[in-house]
Amino acid sequence: MSDAEYPDDLRELVDDYLDGLRFSEAAATAGLEEAMRYSLLAGGKRIRPVLALATARSIGTDPADVLPAAAALELIHTYSLIHDDLPAMDDDDLRRGRATSHVAHGEDVAILAGDGLFAEAIRLISERQGGPADRVVMALSKLTSATGVDGMVGGQYVDVSGQDLDAEGLRRLHELKTGRLIAASVEMPLILGGLSEADTIAYRRFASELGVLFQIVDDILDVTGSDEELGKTHGSDERHGKVTYVSLFGLDEARELAAESHSKARGALAEAAVETHDLELITDFIRNRQS
Amino acid sequence: MSDAEYPDDLRELVDDYLDGLRFSEAAATAGLEEAMRYSLLAGGKRIRPVLALATARSIGTDPADVLPAAAALELIHTYSLIHDDLPAMDDDDLRRGRATSHVAHGEDVAILAGDGLFAEAIRLISERQGGPADRVVMALSKLTSATGVDGMVGGQYVDVSGQDLDAEGLRRLHELKTGRLIAASVEMPLILGGLSEADTIAYRRFASELGVLFQIVDDILDVTGSDEELGKTHGSDERHGKVTYVSLFGLDEARELAAESHSKARGALAEAAVETHDLELITDFIRNRQS
Repeated sequence: MSDAEYPDDLRELVDDYLDGLRFSEAAATAGLEEAMRYSLLAGGKRIRPVLALATARSIGTDPADVLPAAAALELIHTYSLIHDDLPAMDDDDLRRGRATSHVAHGEDVAILAGDGLFAEAIRLISERQGGPADRVVMALSKLTSATGVDGMVGGQYVDVSGQDLDAEGLRRLHELKTGRLIAASVEMPLILGGLSEADTIAYRRFASELGVLFQIVDDILDVTGSDEELGKTHGSDERHGKVTYVSLFGLDEARELAAESHSKARGALAEAAVETHDLELITDFIRNRQS
Repeated sequence: MSDAEYPDDLRELVDDYLDGLRFSEAAATAGLEEAMRYSLLAGGKRIRPVLALATARSIGTDPADVLPAAAALELIHTYSLIHDDLPAMDDDDLRRGRATSHVAHGEDVAILAGDGLFAEAIRLISERQGGPADRVVMALSKLTSATGVDGMVGGQYVDVSGQDLDAEGLRRLHELKTGRLIAASVEMPLILGGLSEADTIAYRRFASELGVLFQIVDDILDVTGSDEELGKTHGSDERHGKVTYVSLFGLDEARELAAESHSKARGALAEAAVETHDLELITDFIRNRQS
């Protein structure tokens, strides 16, 4: 099965914008910036920022208006990958088909590259904005709560702390570790676009289900994918003794769960908006992706 | 020489506020929150947040109004200490008289505790604000530019990358690594208070000089202080072969530089504002501190 269709025009917008980012003119920190760009520009489908741009388009906002917020999502995602790969964490050498940051640049620089990407993500939004100030502050609140203890960082903590997880614990782990940032990718453009809470209910169900779908497929790919396809070492979950949808339910049931989750996400999306073509492509892509 | 007088009422405000912070109710992340609080509540003079509250008071703002921004500065400072102490960075075991985060909680949790503090710092400001939204966004822009590649993280990179520094390079290193966050401690309350750029010129000279003073004294104390007084291992700079004001100028000249810098900071402060009692105390304290 080949990769599904994808909103490549939006991905190009994101890639061009990321490629154009410069964080400092100073020669003394050029090596840090190089390390940050090494990981940031390593390719990938840019699912979070593309999701943000597609959501913007679905409510009639020019996708270009939310590029700073969209790029910030990718900076934060990249920072989390760099830190997750560190020897003290998952200790992975390969990411997106290249040496991980600490292998390429040393562990100290990798830690700082992650820290720098996080700071520059928030700086990007607060400097370039993309909406009235009150909405920007709300969007930042959404983004950072999706990133902190009740979000991505908290999820990574649960993951490394080796807690004994049942199905509910696993769902909660991934809601924190990946789900909340994916949800923020949908919610930030809605906030910047000024939608009321009531108008975002179906969108939020969609985003939440998309996060679940993403993770189930991720767990399946870790078992069925090759290193080459994944661009990282497959079987990493098993090697780390991690509880996954596959370890908990087996491969067949995990695939059924993915199908169910995909169907729920598409259903919520149909309720959320009229102009949903790009978001449908992304939803299908997340289900059918091979890496 | 005993420690100088200090605005203890402001420090108590800060300590109480930090102590009251909770990041999540979830049991699964309680261990992460504990690690964050272990470092955050390890004491210290709270120079950055106290500086922010004192600056607020000097322009007639109720110090309580800027507590979220002030606390965010301390969260960010604490996160930077946790990451700086990591084995891959300065590899320090002792901080504020206690085991460093990675010694107490493991390296993986220490990395995440730093990441979590950073996210929660920005979340704190964006949720609790402390001024009109446009000023909050400007304050966040100031804070994150002081934290990223052109600030604290960039300075730490220059520090670990072993570049050969002359006096100008050393000044620039510390301007990034500590100076910009100290400057943000003064500038954020001015921004939140709505002062015009013109009204902040002398304040900014004061803040910049205060950063220089802070670092010269830090370098002197690393040589002259005892482990017990410092709450960390003295001689750490020399052990790491770091260029410091003492290694570059010798102890006597470094002390003269501190005296000059103190005098310049007091001069700028006298120009900046009328009600400067607390800021004078902090300036004198930074010069006279023993730890």
